[in-house]
Amino acid sequence: MSLPQAPADERPQLRIGMIGYSFMGEAHSQGWRVAPKFFDLPLNPVMQTIVGRNQKAVAQAATRLGWKTYATDWRTVVESDEVDLIDVCTPGDTHAEIAIAALRAGKHVLCEKPLANSVAEAEEMAAAAEEAAKTGAKAMVGFTYRRVPAVALAREMIAAGKIGPIRQVRAQYLQDWLADENAPLAWRLDKEKAGSGALGDIGAHIIDLTQYMTGESITGVTGMLETFVKERPVAVASSGLSGEAGTERGPVTVDDAALFLARFSGGAIATFEATRFAWGRKNAIRIEINGTKGSIAFDFEDMNVLEYYDAGDDQQTAGYRRIIATEDVHPYVAAWWPPGHGLGYEHGFVHQAADLVRDIAEKKQPLPSFSDGLAVQRVLAAVEKSSDAGTVWTDVS
Amino acid sequence: MSLPQAPADERPQLRIGMIGYSFMGEAHSQGWRVAPKFFDLPLNPVMQTIVGRNQKAVAQAATRLGWKTYATDWRTVVESDEVDLIDVCTPGDTHAEIAIAALRAGKHVLCEKPLANSVAEAEEMAAAAEEAAKTGAKAMVGFTYRRVPAVALAREMIAAGKIGPIRQVRAQYLQDWLADENAPLAWRLDKEKAGSGALGDIGAHIIDLTQYMTGESITGVTGMLETFVKERPVAVASSGLSGEAGTERGPVTVDDAALFLARFSGGAIATFEATRFAWGRKNAIRIEINGTKGSIAFDFEDMNVLEYYDAGDDQQTAGYRRIIATEDVHPYVAAWWPPGHGLGYEHGFVHQAADLVRDIAEKKQPLPSFSDGLAVQRVLAAVEKSSDAGTVWTDVS
Amino acid sequence: MSLPQAPADERPQLRIGMIGYSFMGEAHSQGWRVAPKFFDLPLNPVMQTIVGRNQKAVAQAATRLGWKTYATDWRTVVESDEVDLIDVCTPGDTHAEIAIAALRAGKHVLCEKPLANSVAEAEEMAAAAEEAAKTGAKAMVGFTYRRVPAVALAREMIAAGKIGPIRQVRAQYLQDWLADENAPLAWRLDKEKAGSGALGDIGAHIIDLTQYMTGESITGVTGMLETFVKERPVAVASSGLSGEAGTERGPVTVDDAALFLARFSGGAIATFEATRFAWGRKNAIRIEINGTKGSIAFDFEDMNVLEYYDAGDDQQTAGYRRIIATEDVHPYVAAWWPPGHGLGYEHGFVHQAADLVRDIAEKKQPLPSFSDGLAVQRVLAAVEKSSDAGTVWTDVS
Amino acid sequence: MSLPQAPADERPQLRIGMIGYSFMGEAHSQGWRVAPKFFDLPLNPVMQTIVGRNQKAVAQAATRLGWKTYATDWRTVVESDEVDLIDVCTPGDTHAEIAIAALRAGKHVLCEKPLANSVAEAEEMAAAAEEAAKTGAKAMVGFTYRRVPAVALAREMIAAGKIGPIRQVRAQYLQDWLADENAPLAWRLDKEKAGSGALGDIGAHIIDLTQYMTGESITGVTGMLETFVKERPVAVASSGLSGEAGTERGPVTVDDAALFLARFSGGAIATFEATRFAWGRKNAIRIEINGTKGSIAFDFEDMNVLEYYDAGDDQQTAGYRRIIATEDVHPYVAAWWPPGHGLGYEHGFVHQAADLVRDIAEKKQPLPSFSDGLAVQRVLAAVEKSSDAGTVWTDVS
Repeated sequence: MSLPQAPADERPQLRIGMIGYSFMGEAHSQGWRVAPKFFDLPLNPVMQTIVGRNQKAVAQAATRLGWKTYATDWRTVVESDEVDLIDVCTPGDTHAEIAIAALRAGKHVLCEKPLANSVAEAEEMAAAAEEAAKTGAKAMVGFTYRRVPAVALAREMIAAGKIGPIRQVRAQYLQDWLADENAPLAWRLDKEKAGSGALGDIGAHIIDLTQYMTGESITGVTGMLETFVKERPVAVASSGLSGEAGTERGPVTVDDAALFLARFSGGAIATFEATRFAWGRKNAIRIEINGTKGSIAFDFEDMNVLEYYDAGDDQQTAGYRRIIATEDVHPYVAAWWPPGHGLGYEHGFVHQAADLVRDIAEKKQPLPSFSDGLAVQRVLAAVEKSSDAGTVWTDVS
Repeated sequence: MSLPQAPADERPQLRIGMIGYSFMGEAHSQGWRVAPKFFDLPLNPVMQTIVGRNQKAVAQAATRLGWKTYATDWRTVVESDEVDLIDVCTPGDTHAEIAIAALRAGKHVLCEKPLANSVAEAEEMAAAAEEAAKTGAKAMVGFTYRRVPAVALAREMIAAGKIGPIRQVRAQYLQDWLADENAPLAWRLDKEKAGSGALGDIGAHIIDLTQYMTGESITGVTGMLETFVKERPVAVASSGLSGEAGTERGPVTVDDAALFLARFSGGAIATFEATRFAWGRKNAIRIEINGTKGSIAFDFEDMNVLEYYDAGDDQQTAGYRRIIATEDVHPYVAAWWPPGHGLGYEHGFVHQAADLVRDIAEKKQPLPSFSDGLAVQRVLAAVEKSSDAGTVWTDVS
Repeated sequence: MSLPQAPADERPQLRIGMIGYSFMGEAHSQGWRVAPKFFDLPLNPVMQTIVGRNQKAVAQAATRLGWKTYATDWRTVVESDEVDLIDVCTPGDTHAEIAIAALRAGKHVLCEKPLANSVAEAEEMAAAAEEAAKTGAKAMVGFTYRRVPAVALAREMIAAGKIGPIRQVRAQYLQDWLADENAPLAWRLDKEKAGSGALGDIGAHIIDLTQYMTGESITGVTGMLETFVKERPVAVASSGLSGEAGTERGPVTVDDAALFLARFSGGAIATFEATRFAWGRKNAIRIEINGTKGSIAFDFEDMNVLEYYDAGDDQQTAGYRRIIATEDVHPYVAAWWPPGHGLGYEHGFVHQAADLVRDIAEKKQPLPSFSDGLAVQRVLAAVEKSSDAGTVWTDVS
Repeated sequence: MSLPQAPADERPQLRIGMIGYSFMGEAHSQGWRVAPKFFDLPLNPVMQTIVGRNQKAVAQAATRLGWKTYATDWRTVVESDEVDLIDVCTPGDTHAEIAIAALRAGKHVLCEKPLANSVAEAEEMAAAAEEAAKTGAKAMVGFTYRRVPAVALAREMIAAGKIGPIRQVRAQYLQDWLADENAPLAWRLDKEKAGSGALGDIGAHIIDLTQYMTGESITGVTGMLETFVKERPVAVASSGLSGEAGTERGPVTVDDAALFLARFSGGAIATFEATRFAWGRKNAIRIEINGTKGSIAFDFEDMNVLEYYDAGDDQQTAGYRRIIATEDVHPYVAAWWPPGHGLGYEHGFVHQAADLVRDIAEKKQPLPSFSDGLAVQRVLAAVEKSSDAGTVWTDVS
C-alpha cells in the first residue's frame, strides 16, 4: 500500500543559479534550502543550477548541497532560460562581470558583498541594476548581517525615534584568524582577488550596518590602513575563511587592519575599526550608537541580544536592557522558535533569501540595493585614499 | 540546452517516518533536512512520511516541511515497508505505544523527550529497545541539548579529567512563558498529556545534561513541586510552546516549578531548579560543575560559549575562560562556519540526526539510549515521590 | 606663623570599643574611620579602644588602625565609662558572652554575624537586647551586605512593589578558598569556634539578604551538608579568611558546603547554596528573585550592578536592565562619587557605621536587630537539623 | 581607670598641604587618610593643611575631612615650613603656578591631572620638576587609574611579554553626564578653567593609561573634536562632576567628544574616543590591547576584572580569561581583603598616596612624573591641532 503524496507546491517557481560553492556558496545554499520551509513565501525558490570551474568538484557540490543541475561556465547559466535569478558567490574581482551580464540577460541578481573591488566597477553595476530595474529585474547585495533579528530590531527602533537623532557611532569588526604570522596566504589576502583586506572584507559590513541602522550615510572619513605581516606561507588548500599553509611564501598585498574616523550625513561622528589581528575576538561585530534620547549596542559574539538604554527611564531603575531578540514581535523571529531558542549565523542567509523572494514577487526594490553597495564602496575608496594620502580628511564623493 | 543533472546520491537511504508536526515536528524536520548537507553521512536520510490526525493539516505540513508522503494513522507508517525509522514527536502520553510498536515492527526509533509519562511506560520502552536491539533496530531519545557544541565540549573536558572528580553541580532551567497568569492552558499544562509540568518538560533536560556531562547518575533526591497559578484560560489554538487564550478557564494539573537537591553516584551534591516563572529568563539552561581541579559553566542564553576555570593556571592570570565553542576542534563545529559564526537552537536537531544516522550505519547503540531516558524518568519520579511525601529524601530506584 | 586650626567637631561623641583586630577588626575600623568623613552624622564616632588578648599585638594594632587606647581584657572595656558602644569582631563562640555583658553594662552593641553559634545563645542575646532597649541601649548585628547600594536598592524596589509578590528565590554564595585540599585548617573550620562551616559563615549572609530583600521570613527548609575534605594541615598563622599551613594535620569539623530548599512566609519557594569549593568563584553572592511583575538579580562579583526585569515593559524592548547603582538616587551613593565611580567591599562597613550612629542618635532600633540575627540562626539550626535527620522537611521554629 | 594609650607612631612624618576641597579634594583626602592604615609605609603622612579661598567653607572642610589646619591663600602654605608636600587639586588653569611655586619652595608636589591646560605650562612644570629633583623634591601627576589593580596587572603582564609586542590599541572613555542638553554649564565646560573638554578631562586618562600599559608613547594622531550642545544653563552650585542648573544660559567653550586615531612608538595603531554623551555609559574606561601573543581588555565599569587571552593556550580551551584581580598576587591587593572582596574607585587614590610616600622615603622618582604628564599634554595638543587643521595627521612633537 502506498501512502498519499504530499500535494504539489503550487506556487510559481523562482529558479536559482548560484556561481561559487565554497564558504559563501554553502551559506547561500542553506538560505535557499531553508527559507521556504519556515517563511510563507509567494514564490517557491528552486535550487536549479550551481556553477564552478572544476567539473568534478562542482558536480559533487551539486549533489551534496542539493542543486538539480550544474555547470562549469557561468555564462551558460546567465543565458539559460532555466534560471530566473543569479546568485553571485565568487571573489570580488568577478562580481561586476557576472552581475552585469546577468542583469542584461534579464535575470534577478543577488551579489555577495562587497559589491565590487572598485568604485568604478560598483558604479557600472549600479547603473546596470538601474537599467535592468526598468524591465523588472531586481538586484540586491548580500549584506546579511542586516538580517540578524537584533540588528533589524535596532534599525526599527532607531527609525521609530527611540534613541532620537544620532550623535555618535562606534563600530568595530574584530577577528583573529590572521594574528598568527603563519596563517596561510588565502585569496582574501590577495589584492587582485579581494580588492582590499580587512577593510573591504569586514569593514564593509560595519559601514553598511551603521548606515542601515542609522538611516544616514557617511560623508567623510580619515583612515589608516596597516599590514602587520607582510609575507606568509602560500595556501595550498582553502576552507572556511582560510586554508592550509604550504612551504612557499608570498607577499600580503592587502591591509591587515583598517581604522577610520567618520562623519554621518546627520552630523554624527564615528570611529570604525576592522581587523583580523585581535587575538581572542572571533567575529566580534560591535556597534554602539548614541542618540539624544538613548543608546543601542550590539555584539555579534552575543548575536541574539540587543542592548538598549532609554534615557527616559526613571533614574532609579534606568540601565542598559539586555533585549533577547527572540520574541515573536522581533524581526524574522515569528517564523522560528519559542523565546530564548536563539538563532545562529546562517539564519541571516535564510532571511535574505526570504526577503528577496518576497520583494521579487511584490515587484519591490530589494534592499540593500546595488546603490547601497556602491555607497559602501565609495566609503571604502575614501578610506583608502585618505590612508594613501597620509591620513587626511577625505570626503566620500 | 539542458545542463547536466547533479549525480545521484548513491548512498543507501534511511527513510524516515515522523509522527507529529508542531514545534518538535518542525525542529526534527529541519534536522533531517539539513544534516546530510553539512555532515558527510554514510546513509542518506530521506524525509519519507509525516503523520498527523488531521488529514488536511498533515497534507499541508508535508508540502511545507518537505515530506514525500503523509498519513493520518501512525500505525500505517509503523508497519509500512517504505519507512526505516520512526521519529516520535508527539506529546508524552503516546510515546510508549508508538515507540514500542515501531520497535516491534523492526524500525529504528527516535523518541522525543521525556521518554514517557511514567516510569512504568519508560521501563517497557527500555525493555522493548533492548529486545529490538537484538534484531538490529536502534532506539534513541531526543535530548538534543547534549549536542550543543559547548555542552558536548564540557562532556569531553570532564571525561578527560580537566576538572577532576566532581564535587558539586548546580543546574537551573529558567523560562518565563507562564509567569503571566493569563497565559493559556496549553497541553503542556495537562497532566494527562504532559505527565508533569516544568519538572518533566524542562527539568528532564537538566537531569539528562548533568548526568551526561558528569558521566554519573543521580542516586537520590529531595524535591519540592509548586503550582503558582491553579487555573488558566483554556487555549484555543497552539503555537510554539504555548498558544492563544480563550474565555473558558480550566485547572492547571501540573507543577509550575520544581526544585530539588540531589546526590550523584560519585558523591557530588547538587541543586536543581526548573521553572517557567522566572520573568526575563527566556531559555536559561544554566549548569555549573565544580571538580577538584576546576570548574565549567554553561548558559544556553549564550549558547556558543563554555566557561572554564582551570585551578592549575598560574594564580596571577587564572580566571574563567570564555571559550567561544566555534572552532574546528570543538564538537560538530568543523561541519559549519568559521570561528565566531555561532550556531543556534535548531543545530542540536541537525547534530542529533547526523549522529543517529552514523550510529545506525555503524550498528552502534545511539546515545542517549532508552535506558538513559528511563534513568531520567526515574529521577523525575523520585522527585515527585519526594514532593508528595513532604519533601523527604528519596532514593532513585 | 601658624595656620588656624580646624574648628573643633562640636557634635557629641560616640566612643567605640572594638573587640578583635583581624579581618573583621580591620573592616570595622575602616567603617568607623571613614563614615564621619562622607556622611553627615549627628554624633561623632570616636575610635576609642581596641581589645585583643596579645598585649604587644593589640598595642601595635591600636597604632596602625588608629585607636586611641587598647586593652587585653574585653571585660575592662565593657565596664569602662570611656566607651559608649561595644563592637564585637571576635569568632562566634564568644559573641554571646561579650554582647550580653556589654548590653547589661548599658553599652550599645554592634555584633558581627552570625549572631551566635547556637539558637540558645542567640535567644539569650535577643532577650538581652530587648531588655537593654528599655534603657536606651541599641543592639545591631553586622550583616553588612545589606548595605551594598545595589542590594539596598533591590530592597527598596521590592518594598515598592516593583516586582510584585515574590514567587521564587534562588540564592548562592560561592567561594573557592577551600577547594584546594591543602588549604590550612583555619579557625573557620573548627566547629567549637565557628559553630558551623559554609552554612554559618556565608550561608548566613544569603539567608539574611533574602529575608531582608523580600521582607519575608523563611518558614521551613530541607537541607544537606557535606564535608568534602575531612582532614587538613593545621594553620600556623592566620590572615584574611585563611592562613598558612603547617605540617601537622587535623580534622575538619564543619561543613564544606550547604544546600537547602526553603519556603518563605509569603509562599515563595527557594533554593540556597553556600560553598567554599566552587573553583573560580571568589565571592559570588548571587541572588535572583522572581515576582509576579518582574525580577531582580544581583551578583557580588559585579557588586555595583543590580539587574532588573520589568514585565510591564513593552515586549519589543523588554530585557534585564543593568542598573549601575552609582547614581545619587541610589541608597548611600549621594555621599560618594559621581556616577560610574563604583564602590567596593568595605563600603558596606562604612554604611553600617553611619546607619548605626544615626539610629543611636535618633533613638531608633538599628537593623538588622538581634532578633533578625536570631531569625537567621533559627534557619541555620533548621538546616542542620534537617541534614542530620537525612534531609527531611524541617520547620523553622 | 584609664586604658593604655596606643604607642606613638614613630615613623617620620610627611606633612601634606592640599589645595582644593571639592571632588578631587575629597578623593585625595581619603587617599591620605586611608593609605597609612592599610599599607606599611616608611613615613607617616599627616593631613596638615587644607586650602580654599572661602574661609568659612575651607574651615568646615578642614573639620569634616580631617585636616589639622586651614588657609585661604595657597602661597602661605607653599611657603610654610609646616608642610612637606603640596597636593594640587584645583582646576587646570592654576596647576602650573601653584606646582612651580611649591617645587621652587622645596616641597614635593602631587598635581591632579591633566598636568596643565597647555603644553607651554606643562613644559615649564616639567622643567621645574627636573630642577627641583636635584634638591630632592619629588613631583608626580595624579593619573590614579594606573593604580587600579587590574590596570597595574595589565601593565605587569605586558611588560613581562605575556601578549608579545603590541599591534593594536583601542581605548574609549565613555560617560553620559552631558548627554542631557540641560545639564548645567559647570567649570569643566569652560575652556579658561578646564583647558579642554572631554579630551583633556577624560581623554587624558586613556592617553596616559595606554602609554603606561604598553610602555610606549604615542607618536602621531589625527583627531576630530565636536561640541554637540553649544549653549547650556549656567551652573549655580557645583557638586561631583556637575552641579545645579540656573536660568541664565552660557556658551560651551570646550569639546563634548574627542575622537582620534594614533600610532605608538613601537608601531602599534590605535583608536581613541572620549565622550560625555554616551547615554548609559557612566564611567566606561575601556581599553583593549592586542599583541602578537595575546590580548588584554579592561572596562572600568567592571573595575576589579582584567580580561586576558593567551594565544598560546590549547585551542580547545582557549578563551578570554576573566581574571578577578583581587588575589594577593595582584598589585596592591595584599593590603586589602580576601579574594573577591572588590575594591572601588577611591582605592586608586589610596594607592597613589602609598606609592608616593614610599618613593619619597626611598628617594625614587615617583611615576607618573611631570614628564609623563607633559607627554600626555603633547598628545592632547596634537589632537587639537589636528582637529583645528581639518583632521590631518599630526606628529606629537
